[in-house]
Amino acid sequence: MSLKIYVDFSLPSEALARLKEGASGHELVFPSKPAASVLAKTEPDPSFYQADIAFGQPDIDAIEKAASLKWIHINTSGITRYDTPEFRARMAERQIPVSNSASVYNSACADHALSFMMAQSRQLPQALGFRASNVSDDWFRLRRGSVSLKGQKALLIGYGAIGKRLAELLAPHHMQLSAYRRQARGDETIPVITEDELGASLATADHVINILPDSPSTRNFFDANRFAQCKTGSVYYNIGRGTTTDQDALHAALTSGQLKEAWLDVTEPEPLPDGHPLLSLPNCYITPHIAGGHFGEVMHCVENFLENLDRFTNGKSLVDHVI
Amino acid sequence: MSLKIYVDFSLPSEALARLKEGASGHELVFPSKPAASVLAKTEPDPSFYQADIAFGQPDIDAIEKAASLKWIHINTSGITRYDTPEFRARMAERQIPVSNSASVYNSACADHALSFMMAQSRQLPQALGFRASNVSDDWFRLRRGSVSLKGQKALLIGYGAIGKRLAELLAPHHMQLSAYRRQARGDETIPVITEDELGASLATADHVINILPDSPSTRNFFDANRFAQCKTGSVYYNIGRGTTTDQDALHAALTSGQLKEAWLDVTEPEPLPDGHPLLSLPNCYITPHIAGGHFGEVMHCVENFLENLDRFTNGKSLVDHVI
Repeated sequence: MSLKIYVDFSLPSEALARLKEGASGHELVFPSKPAASVLAKTEPDPSFYQADIAFGQPDIDAIEKAASLKWIHINTSGITRYDTPEFRARMAERQIPVSNSASVYNSACADHALSFMMAQSRQLPQALGFRASNVSDDWFRLRRGSVSLKGQKALLIGYGAIGKRLAELLAPHHMQLSAYRRQARGDETIPVITEDELGASLATADHVINILPDSPSTRNFFDANRFAQCKTGSVYYNIGRGTTTDQDALHAALTSGQLKEAWLDVTEPEPLPDGHPLLSLPNCYITPHIAGGHFGEVMHCVENFLENLDRFTNGKSLVDHVI
Repeated sequence: MSLKIYVDFSLPSEALARLKEGASGHELVFPSKPAASVLAKTEPDPSFYQADIAFGQPDIDAIEKAASLKWIHINTSGITRYDTPEFRARMAERQIPVSNSASVYNSACADHALSFMMAQSRQLPQALGFRASNVSDDWFRLRRGSVSLKGQKALLIGYGAIGKRLAELLAPHHMQLSAYRRQARGDETIPVITEDELGASLATADHVINILPDSPSTRNFFDANRFAQCKTGSVYYNIGRGTTTDQDALHAALTSGQLKEAWLDVTEPEPLPDGHPLLSLPNCYITPHIAGGHFGEVMHCVENFLENLDRFTNGKSLVDHVI
């Protein structure tokens, strides 16, 4: 059966060629003007209303009017705007499965978190370009300031594919690993703690790694109270979403020494505006929401879609079926 | 039997207390003026000539005059000044074993190498503090410039305890690992190549990690010919010794694009002087010989010595017995 696949984001020529080849037998439809950003609200395009499949970031209102829609595949890992009780209920009612592209980005996100942890442990920001003589006090201080991850306690806040992969990467470092999850599912590879144990766990964790998605229940999850529960001198990492952190509280915790350092790939907003207080803190390291990025990511995203297209057309369960 | 242990380097009070406690029953002797640097030639101190054990960096000429010397424990991993055929022959003749402190620093060195590889893969120098909007071309370029270690080929040049540990740390990254060793010993955990295969291996390696010690046979091991054998766009790391790299040839390889980047913890000399050509290259990242450094390293060094003291006094084989 030939299906009409609506693709609402720009693809480089190589990825487009791969999509056309992989989806041959189906009809690919593109809006006259693709979305400028994966997160911008797209202009509804008339051709969308005849689509069987949406691949990209389809508009919620347009989805309602697309009567023949059978499956939605989001081209990002984040699904914030779709993740509402109303939308979930409506998709269930219309029997439209929604999958995302988490598989494409999980491994790179875990790599990014590890790069933060290693750079922190080995003090790369301080050490790169440091040229003091190797018998100076400054040199001894730097040299002996590197705290090995071995034996330290790392608490992952949120545990899904990224957390699982990060735990694999950290295994040879012999840390004490645990993860916070609202509900343990039994498929975790490291010990899991739930809400009532969180305060006690934060109080002993040397490294707190926030991998939470954005949702009403995670907004400002790390607020002044949570930071006050953290071990003095611990390190906070955020590779989830900027909205999960109260940035004023983070600033206070970094200034008071409650936290030794923060390593953030996400902020609210992105990028932070000129003069934002976090930008002037010497112990706050920020990368611009690139944790999932990697060479060939668009091709990877297309391959992931094609894998799911094959599954969808053969009645198999979808990878990263999220709604 | 009470032994006279000569300690020729400065110990912070906590480490000194631990040494005194652990070596109780023996006599600790300190020079009136400890060496300023672990690598500086120490003033011979008269008390050295009565020592049974030397712990630190004893002077070669003074060793010759220390008639009762029974064991030398070097407080560093590098043993360049002792590693000569003449000294080895003389120690064999006098039946004086020499051990070093490699165990103290191996793990931190492997961590440092991994921190370089992760920072390189995730482009941390470019990404930290980069604030372009996340729909800009610059942002896409950065985001898609991160090349995962997965599937890439890493060639370790030199394989000992550091290489073995680095291979453990890299295992979950699913790279293609191999090591160059002058003579395979059969105890390696990854495939080993020898001299005649080196050129072909360099030609396909994405990451070349130099862990060679300093010795007459390793000086300028990486010269213009070796860099010419490297895969175009590969990354060179040095956590061994600065003398193993012809820095003019390295500069040329970084300028021509033969090498994408260099990450060096060691240079010749250290630090590089103002105006040295490597300092102005944007693709040359240098830390100041801190790879083995870690919090508590002096205490760790004392513990390691005490372990060997126990072995020595009980006639057991020494850890890190190098000469």
